[in-house]
Amino acid sequence: MILDAPPRGFPYSEFEKRTERAQILMAEKGISALLLTTEPEIRYFSGFLTQFWRSPTRPWFLVVPASGKPIAVIPEIGRQCMARTWITDIRTWDSPHPDDDGIGLLSETLNGATDGQGKIGLPMGRETHLRLPLTEYAKLTETLGSHEFADATDIVVSLREIKSSLEIAKITHICEIASNAFDVLPNIVQTGMPASEIFRRFKIKLIECGADDVPYIAIGVGQGGYGDIISPPSDIPTEPGDILILDTGSIRDGYFCDFDRNFAFQRTDDEAKQVNNILYAATQAGIDAARPGASMKDLHSAMAQTMESAGYVLGDVGRMGHGLGMQLTEWPSIAPFDPAILKPGMVMTIEPGLNYGDGLTMVHEENILIQDGPPIMLSRRAAPDLQII
Amino acid sequence: MILDAPPRGFPYSEFEKRTERAQILMAEKGISALLLTTEPEIRYFSGFLTQFWRSPTRPWFLVVPASGKPIAVIPEIGRQCMARTWITDIRTWDSPHPDDDGIGLLSETLNGATDGQGKIGLPMGRETHLRLPLTEYAKLTETLGSHEFADATDIVVSLREIKSSLEIAKITHICEIASNAFDVLPNIVQTGMPASEIFRRFKIKLIECGADDVPYIAIGVGQGGYGDIISPPSDIPTEPGDILILDTGSIRDGYFCDFDRNFAFQRTDDEAKQVNNILYAATQAGIDAARPGASMKDLHSAMAQTMESAGYVLGDVGRMGHGLGMQLTEWPSIAPFDPAILKPGMVMTIEPGLNYGDGLTMVHEENILIQDGPPIMLSRRAAPDLQII
Repeated sequence: MILDAPPRGFPYSEFEKRTERAQILMAEKGISALLLTTEPEIRYFSGFLTQFWRSPTRPWFLVVPASGKPIAVIPEIGRQCMARTWITDIRTWDSPHPDDDGIGLLSETLNGATDGQGKIGLPMGRETHLRLPLTEYAKLTETLGSHEFADATDIVVSLREIKSSLEIAKITHICEIASNAFDVLPNIVQTGMPASEIFRRFKIKLIECGADDVPYIAIGVGQGGYGDIISPPSDIPTEPGDILILDTGSIRDGYFCDFDRNFAFQRTDDEAKQVNNILYAATQAGIDAARPGASMKDLHSAMAQTMESAGYVLGDVGRMGHGLGMQLTEWPSIAPFDPAILKPGMVMTIEPGLNYGDGLTMVHEENILIQDGPPIMLSRRAAPDLQII
Repeated sequence: MILDAPPRGFPYSEFEKRTERAQILMAEKGISALLLTTEPEIRYFSGFLTQFWRSPTRPWFLVVPASGKPIAVIPEIGRQCMARTWITDIRTWDSPHPDDDGIGLLSETLNGATDGQGKIGLPMGRETHLRLPLTEYAKLTETLGSHEFADATDIVVSLREIKSSLEIAKITHICEIASNAFDVLPNIVQTGMPASEIFRRFKIKLIECGADDVPYIAIGVGQGGYGDIISPPSDIPTEPGDILILDTGSIRDGYFCDFDRNFAFQRTDDEAKQVNNILYAATQAGIDAARPGASMKDLHSAMAQTMESAGYVLGDVGRMGHGLGMQLTEWPSIAPFDPAILKPGMVMTIEPGLNYGDGLTMVHEENILIQDGPPIMLSRRAAPDLQII
């Protein structure tokens, strides 16, 4: 059941390239050092992979200087794990600490990396956050009086949105794992089983198929269609005529898949059939439009037109797909306003949804890799017709 | 295998009580409204439980006014899920949004809740963060020109650190689930199996035993002891004489357990046996000291003395246990500097660790409920001797 997997981790050359690219962009923007506080950003530049981020207690920092390797400024508890990465300059403090939980060491490091002045880049824009208490950020700002913080979101985005061949291999692999789990779903699920039990069996199957973890399963079920798909699964038995959606963000070696499948229990009414077929066509239109040079608006329009010309109302989730990789969802958003242009190496979800009937919704989702010419399917393309269990 | 579980969710009265208590503390501190942006805080006051937080794309807000029910200011995609909670005032916008991703609606809501002035409480202290891009926070601050933000960490902490009987039932249940999974571990694991396979089997077993999810497993393995336990598991086969630690933060209905067990494959050397027995005694000393009125320093000293008097060096993770509940780790920290005093209803991990040999470490961990008199064991107490597989 477990597939041949690409090797875990990355060669150091991968991190060298990422760092050099960041440093070129930093130089262009006059940024002397990049300060990173969140899991995906620190992992992107260091390879630091751990579930320990689950604990909110301790702050973690990575400083990318104008030249040379990044410097880790982290709690002592992480030293050995960080020492397994390509990072060699690892500065630690005992955390949690009564009065200086790393800010002193970080300031010293930033001062050293910048000669005490200049712009410090920090991701401050869309989809980012600072993983540091605001009181600690205020202390840091005060300590670094002669520096100014500048938004570095675009540096991070422009690097992370183009996946390397090694990243693509990892995403391809987790997509295969999830495709295999979806393929056997009709064998492990039956009418009458509540959503909570389907959820549990699907999760176990994903792990058996090779997922390291299943941080995200959305599930929706209901007669002729589902509504809300972000609530936890219910214990109500499924019935003939119910439509089921399962959407999984599973993870292997730090990289996500994110796609869904729809199923019908025993039978399906004409409207659900029709909605499914329109969404299949809309997904295909999105995939067909996904060529280098296409805008987010192009992709959105391709999908929207297919649905609207069939007389349906678009879903109201604000977008019809997004980037994918180290996080379940990444920039860009397939929404008319997003200025991103597709480039080879981008991995995207194509995710049209529409509303029908009395508060029902249906969503399709596939994962693709943008390349010159038609995109590569990473998820195993759904069947055109609603699969019956 | 699946135990009788307490009912999912909470009656509305639970949220009423939480909100009323918060409002009393807000009044004392002159705070007109509380602004919450993170998963546990929003869930604590609303009951909003979803895996959708995995996507960093959209901000979510909950406003607790000086009186009355909290107000949800959230992306439209979350309306149906939020409508299942006790919250009735649900204000939504289509997110992601090109230019106003909720800040306008949030400002309006905060202004309405505060008559346009006064202090807005925001958790800004230890273990908190703002789940909102810094550029958006700057916009919010500007829009709310006549307000001032005040740190509300202590309000959140003083509420969340005392668990209600319904919360305790949930934590007790997930601790039972993990205890059951640990009990059968020797039946599903054998010498020669790599850590990666042990990790996978343990995770599946936890889900089979009733966990909804297993967001955290720390694993360490090595001859006579382990070092780093926060790195992902390796594919190297285990050998006789290896010591294994498994530490799980599993979750059921939004509440965590967090405890570990140590095992030896086939045989164990005298030092590992001795270290294990000292840690068992240190854990017991921590449990015995855990009475209402005891300080964090008292607990830390009780454990430290047991280890130091046996001639061992304390681990350097900065603390020997912590609060537990909606998050894997919560305030307080069992560290000499933490000013918290134990009170009935607090749920704590007791987690002494020590260093020995050549860079080896061993950690024990149990979960307890503080009450008048001796604490209640929530995890099933480990055996005094290292268990042999």
